[in-house]
Amino acid sequence: MKAKPTLSVGLIGYQFMGKAHSNAWRQAPRFFDLPAEVRMKTICGRNRPAVKKAAAKFGWENAQTDWRRVMDDRKIDIVDICTPNDSHSEIAIAAANAGKAILCEKPLARNVAEAEKMARAAKQARVVNMVCHNYRRIPAIALARQMIERGELGEVFHFRARYAQDWIVDPKFPLVWRLQSNVAGSGALGDIFSHIVDLARYLIGEFKEVCAITETFVKQRPLEKNRRAKGKVTVDDAVTMIGRFRNGALASLEATRFAPGRKNSITLEINGSAGSVFFDLEEMNRLKFFDRRDPQDRQGFRDILVTEPTHPYMGEWWPPGHIIGYEHTFVHTIADFVKAVVDGKSVQPTFEDGLKNQRVLDSVARSARSRSWSTL
Amino acid sequence: MKAKPTLSVGLIGYQFMGKAHSNAWRQAPRFFDLPAEVRMKTICGRNRPAVKKAAAKFGWENAQTDWRRVMDDRKIDIVDICTPNDSHSEIAIAAANAGKAILCEKPLARNVAEAEKMARAAKQARVVNMVCHNYRRIPAIALARQMIERGELGEVFHFRARYAQDWIVDPKFPLVWRLQSNVAGSGALGDIFSHIVDLARYLIGEFKEVCAITETFVKQRPLEKNRRAKGKVTVDDAVTMIGRFRNGALASLEATRFAPGRKNSITLEINGSAGSVFFDLEEMNRLKFFDRRDPQDRQGFRDILVTEPTHPYMGEWWPPGHIIGYEHTFVHTIADFVKAVVDGKSVQPTFEDGLKNQRVLDSVARSARSRSWSTL
Amino acid sequence: MKAKPTLSVGLIGYQFMGKAHSNAWRQAPRFFDLPAEVRMKTICGRNRPAVKKAAAKFGWENAQTDWRRVMDDRKIDIVDICTPNDSHSEIAIAAANAGKAILCEKPLARNVAEAEKMARAAKQARVVNMVCHNYRRIPAIALARQMIERGELGEVFHFRARYAQDWIVDPKFPLVWRLQSNVAGSGALGDIFSHIVDLARYLIGEFKEVCAITETFVKQRPLEKNRRAKGKVTVDDAVTMIGRFRNGALASLEATRFAPGRKNSITLEINGSAGSVFFDLEEMNRLKFFDRRDPQDRQGFRDILVTEPTHPYMGEWWPPGHIIGYEHTFVHTIADFVKAVVDGKSVQPTFEDGLKNQRVLDSVARSARSRSWSTL
Amino acid sequence: MKAKPTLSVGLIGYQFMGKAHSNAWRQAPRFFDLPAEVRMKTICGRNRPAVKKAAAKFGWENAQTDWRRVMDDRKIDIVDICTPNDSHSEIAIAAANAGKAILCEKPLARNVAEAEKMARAAKQARVVNMVCHNYRRIPAIALARQMIERGELGEVFHFRARYAQDWIVDPKFPLVWRLQSNVAGSGALGDIFSHIVDLARYLIGEFKEVCAITETFVKQRPLEKNRRAKGKVTVDDAVTMIGRFRNGALASLEATRFAPGRKNSITLEINGSAGSVFFDLEEMNRLKFFDRRDPQDRQGFRDILVTEPTHPYMGEWWPPGHIIGYEHTFVHTIADFVKAVVDGKSVQPTFEDGLKNQRVLDSVARSARSRSWSTL
Repeated sequence: MKAKPTLSVGLIGYQFMGKAHSNAWRQAPRFFDLPAEVRMKTICGRNRPAVKKAAAKFGWENAQTDWRRVMDDRKIDIVDICTPNDSHSEIAIAAANAGKAILCEKPLARNVAEAEKMARAAKQARVVNMVCHNYRRIPAIALARQMIERGELGEVFHFRARYAQDWIVDPKFPLVWRLQSNVAGSGALGDIFSHIVDLARYLIGEFKEVCAITETFVKQRPLEKNRRAKGKVTVDDAVTMIGRFRNGALASLEATRFAPGRKNSITLEINGSAGSVFFDLEEMNRLKFFDRRDPQDRQGFRDILVTEPTHPYMGEWWPPGHIIGYEHTFVHTIADFVKAVVDGKSVQPTFEDGLKNQRVLDSVARSARSRSWSTL
Repeated sequence: MKAKPTLSVGLIGYQFMGKAHSNAWRQAPRFFDLPAEVRMKTICGRNRPAVKKAAAKFGWENAQTDWRRVMDDRKIDIVDICTPNDSHSEIAIAAANAGKAILCEKPLARNVAEAEKMARAAKQARVVNMVCHNYRRIPAIALARQMIERGELGEVFHFRARYAQDWIVDPKFPLVWRLQSNVAGSGALGDIFSHIVDLARYLIGEFKEVCAITETFVKQRPLEKNRRAKGKVTVDDAVTMIGRFRNGALASLEATRFAPGRKNSITLEINGSAGSVFFDLEEMNRLKFFDRRDPQDRQGFRDILVTEPTHPYMGEWWPPGHIIGYEHTFVHTIADFVKAVVDGKSVQPTFEDGLKNQRVLDSVARSARSRSWSTL
Repeated sequence: MKAKPTLSVGLIGYQFMGKAHSNAWRQAPRFFDLPAEVRMKTICGRNRPAVKKAAAKFGWENAQTDWRRVMDDRKIDIVDICTPNDSHSEIAIAAANAGKAILCEKPLARNVAEAEKMARAAKQARVVNMVCHNYRRIPAIALARQMIERGELGEVFHFRARYAQDWIVDPKFPLVWRLQSNVAGSGALGDIFSHIVDLARYLIGEFKEVCAITETFVKQRPLEKNRRAKGKVTVDDAVTMIGRFRNGALASLEATRFAPGRKNSITLEINGSAGSVFFDLEEMNRLKFFDRRDPQDRQGFRDILVTEPTHPYMGEWWPPGHIIGYEHTFVHTIADFVKAVVDGKSVQPTFEDGLKNQRVLDSVARSARSRSWSTL
Repeated sequence: MKAKPTLSVGLIGYQFMGKAHSNAWRQAPRFFDLPAEVRMKTICGRNRPAVKKAAAKFGWENAQTDWRRVMDDRKIDIVDICTPNDSHSEIAIAAANAGKAILCEKPLARNVAEAEKMARAAKQARVVNMVCHNYRRIPAIALARQMIERGELGEVFHFRARYAQDWIVDPKFPLVWRLQSNVAGSGALGDIFSHIVDLARYLIGEFKEVCAITETFVKQRPLEKNRRAKGKVTVDDAVTMIGRFRNGALASLEATRFAPGRKNSITLEINGSAGSVFFDLEEMNRLKFFDRRDPQDRQGFRDILVTEPTHPYMGEWWPPGHIIGYEHTFVHTIADFVKAVVDGKSVQPTFEDGLKNQRVLDSVARSARSRSWSTL
């Protein structure tokens, strides 16, 4: 028996996504049969005490404050980018040039120009590259994709998705960096709308044209450091869009941070000539499936608990009926990424997918600004 | 074309059930193709102004205060009994002796002795007789029965039902007649537990043995006429029972008036070797159906909206997706009853069924008193 | 005590809506305390045997084949219009000129020009006039309106509604008149989209601007009389729209006849600064309500079973927990209409509302044709 | 700052529970601020290749085939017992005698006699001891407990729980050890009924008396090693029970492996004078809560998504709306256990709780055998 190769990882970023990715690097080899050993070598962040604490907490061998040192480390095979969007491009291009395989958090970049450079760099360097749209690897979503591929929904008529949160409904919530365009690029658009654009592309295909509204409901907010003063909110609070896919299906997408009671809710419905599926992220272990081939008086949406060993990814976890949670989607992503790195093969969603996603986001923003349809 | 016969009805009682039955007599001919015209001739009650008002409101030709006059009226073909339980027996026996077809509200009687006399009288008089267990004719329940008959659930292992209400949770709620055993006979037992006993018998078959608890949580309540004084509650607030059916299936039944938030909730689940069904009265237009024959990774409870024209009774109402309500179950009952009267045929549930139901109730009460199993 | 006046009704049309309205005329006086007696005098339709049969079945005194005779009948106080859309205008104007109170099925007309004439005629004749958008009087919808009026949702950010059906998904379904624009005017747009436009206006207010797609998925269908030949479908199968209300809220509306498993489904969600509500027509006795004022760790959408006596319209029906069905919404509509006629007062939604609705529909169609935003 | 102590763990068993506990030992320090470092020192199992593989896969330093060696290892502070039930007693007593803190999988023992010895040994050795009833530490269950303690449900009337699975419905499923009483002790009773007994005791209190049925639906099954031959099933397939708690509340509990479509379903409802809660393990991140103090026309079960930082355990995981899965309950259990070991304090559920649970199970079995009530 040949020994497995070892892949060493450098993670850039240690906040929410850094925590989620660290967990996935730790857990993937414990549950999936990976073709390589994973070595959690370096975690990198600008604040030395914080990154050292993160290294200890999350299980990294060492901590680093300069991401360029990670690129220089010849022992590191994989760079995982979990920083804010404004640094994705520079880091990813450096990683590509250093010949590292790259996993980059979504959205790939702040705009199409950046995304194009990143995709080009990855292509030229011939490194395995992936954008971390983790929701593709929710078993219920992967099952929906499987159904569509096998024709179980028939010709698709409608795709509807909504990503709703409520964390900034309170007008006293301060002007954090996510609400400033110079830092965040956009608001709900890049942060959560990008996720449902990715699901739309994954499940249905490419968009042909879009028309959208963006809105900022609370236009001024207290400054973080001086709550008595207010500053201008320069990103969108909500995006609502209609559009057409190239295959003729209609699209209706919405993302909002102003839906009280919807904490992290993606609802998604697809209607086709042979059936429909419905998904709700707050019940992410379920897929509702209506099959027109059932006898007429026995038809009804089936409430599939996606925990069978024959369901995507579920054979590695627990027996039927034992549900998985949010962070498992990252474990699935990283398990597939590791396999791709070992095999030297492409793994979806690639930087090219991230670029296409960015083109949709840019079209949506342009449509909203110009109050007109935008063609992709 | 032969003219339809006309059936004239005398209704005894004008409260909640009187209202529901009146509506059904009015509506049945409007939606169902009945083999007879229905004439709403007489409504009867002890309080003259109240019954006159009810006659006008509900659409009866005339009002009457003495039910014996209804028996004497040779033009009346059908007697419909909606009075409190303590008069069911006397009225029904008189109606049988007068040769009337009889529809009687549940429970058939206060006890087995009464029920036996009623069943005997109806049998001897050879009149069509029916107990109004209206929930049998919820389309979703009739569909479940159809599934069981066709073997779609296979061999039945479990029957579970719970009838839960919350209208007397407040200890300040007064000592109404329903809480006094000399008037009501029993509490939750006769009032609502009898309904799920009927559904159990309809769907699964006869009970073999039962063991039960009854409980009165609030033992004293304010008197209706003098709220400062208290009187003793002499009926059960809740009944909980386990048992076996003759066919070997296990039973678990419960009725309670002490379940905050459950207004008029019957939940029912049946598990068999080939599948399961679940029903909830608060969503009475739905039946959840799990079919073990579906492919393993496409299995899930189907949420059947029981509004298709091919579903029991639904062809006469509205297009698919347009739901019906509580009182429609009485319309279905009366439509079937009218057909049976014209045909001179038996129609379930008969007085014999009411008697069998009463035997279960008596066994349950006996088991609770004696703290032991009771065999049927 | 003064005797109640009697209002005599003439109903034009006897199909699906004729059946639903007949039921409501029959039932309203049985459950609601109306200030008038209702006399179901004349039902009118072009096919004599069919309308005679309908008269007998639905409970009308006489049948008529020429609607003009209804206008001439001086004893008739109310004209109720349940015909296809292309005759609404002519009949309603004649009724107004004859001084009748008018209830007209939705959509009010085929286009704005017709609707304007109708609204003008009704105004000039000073007759009570109402469009039958029955869903306004679903108790859960009326409750949502009450909540909004009382500020329980705060400032509204989002209104989303979707009306989905599936009855023409099969491409073999024939080219019925509803799929021909010369007869039906439009497809999903006038038939079902108009309902959610009405709910939007009722709950949120007037639209400011809209942008929409319409689509016909199955472009040719078998002819009704010769299934081997095909004809062109000339109406929309689906409409999807985004827009803004005058008060700044965002709108997302969709209607489709191509959603397998959605039989007659309206889902609706409103998000405001103080809370959210969610409604689903297939569970029309429920309203989900999220209240931001609940303590943070006790928050959650409340599943309100809208059957309490304190809920709109429910005091007249059954005890809590006993649900009502589809046709009850017409009973509520007609009960309110009768009161308005007796009082000589306006009752929403008026013809003016119908006209405003039509203006939205026309803007939607124009936007879809021109591929641009349309301002109201 | 004082350095944290290190606690070394020896895990006995490496199958399903071994996998779940290994994960929890690995994850607990990554998410919770534990007062000790955790060293995953030894995993122990009888099959050398299998246990070595498990050590590598699950992250243990070394593998061991004789559990007595674990007791002899003075560096090991904690013994975690995940073996089949028939060895719990011997191992736990040895661990107590060796002065180890002990975590033992449920059920604590095969019978009361064994459980008594274990509880006594742990008490005499004064070691921290805990039974792994992981479902107590589902955040929604912990929240329900908090509500009850704070009086939010008032006086409790009803506790109902059902644990339903379907993995042996097929009569061709072989006679595995779990279906043989000499190995497993009992069937659904010890395996899953014990879980809901634990939840009942945790949430409501001690049982006073019980009456139960046990049933074996499929009495013979194919042998594992020779599928053509059949052997006798010697354990129960289902248990259904009624009973009373000492505080007067009524109990209804059921466990079955014969409920098609119910994969690993615990449903639980508690009704009290001030409100009700409902829980479903298949949606374990939710708790439904009905509060009688809400205004009457705004009442309804609240669907609490138990993912807020203020909810039990959830502050350590992800932002609101990001759900957790099955194995997290073990992480919570082990985090609390580690704290208790460091503090030398008792942590519920103790071996004493396990013993009390066993007494209930024995009473249930005795009641079923004797067909009579059994007092605790």
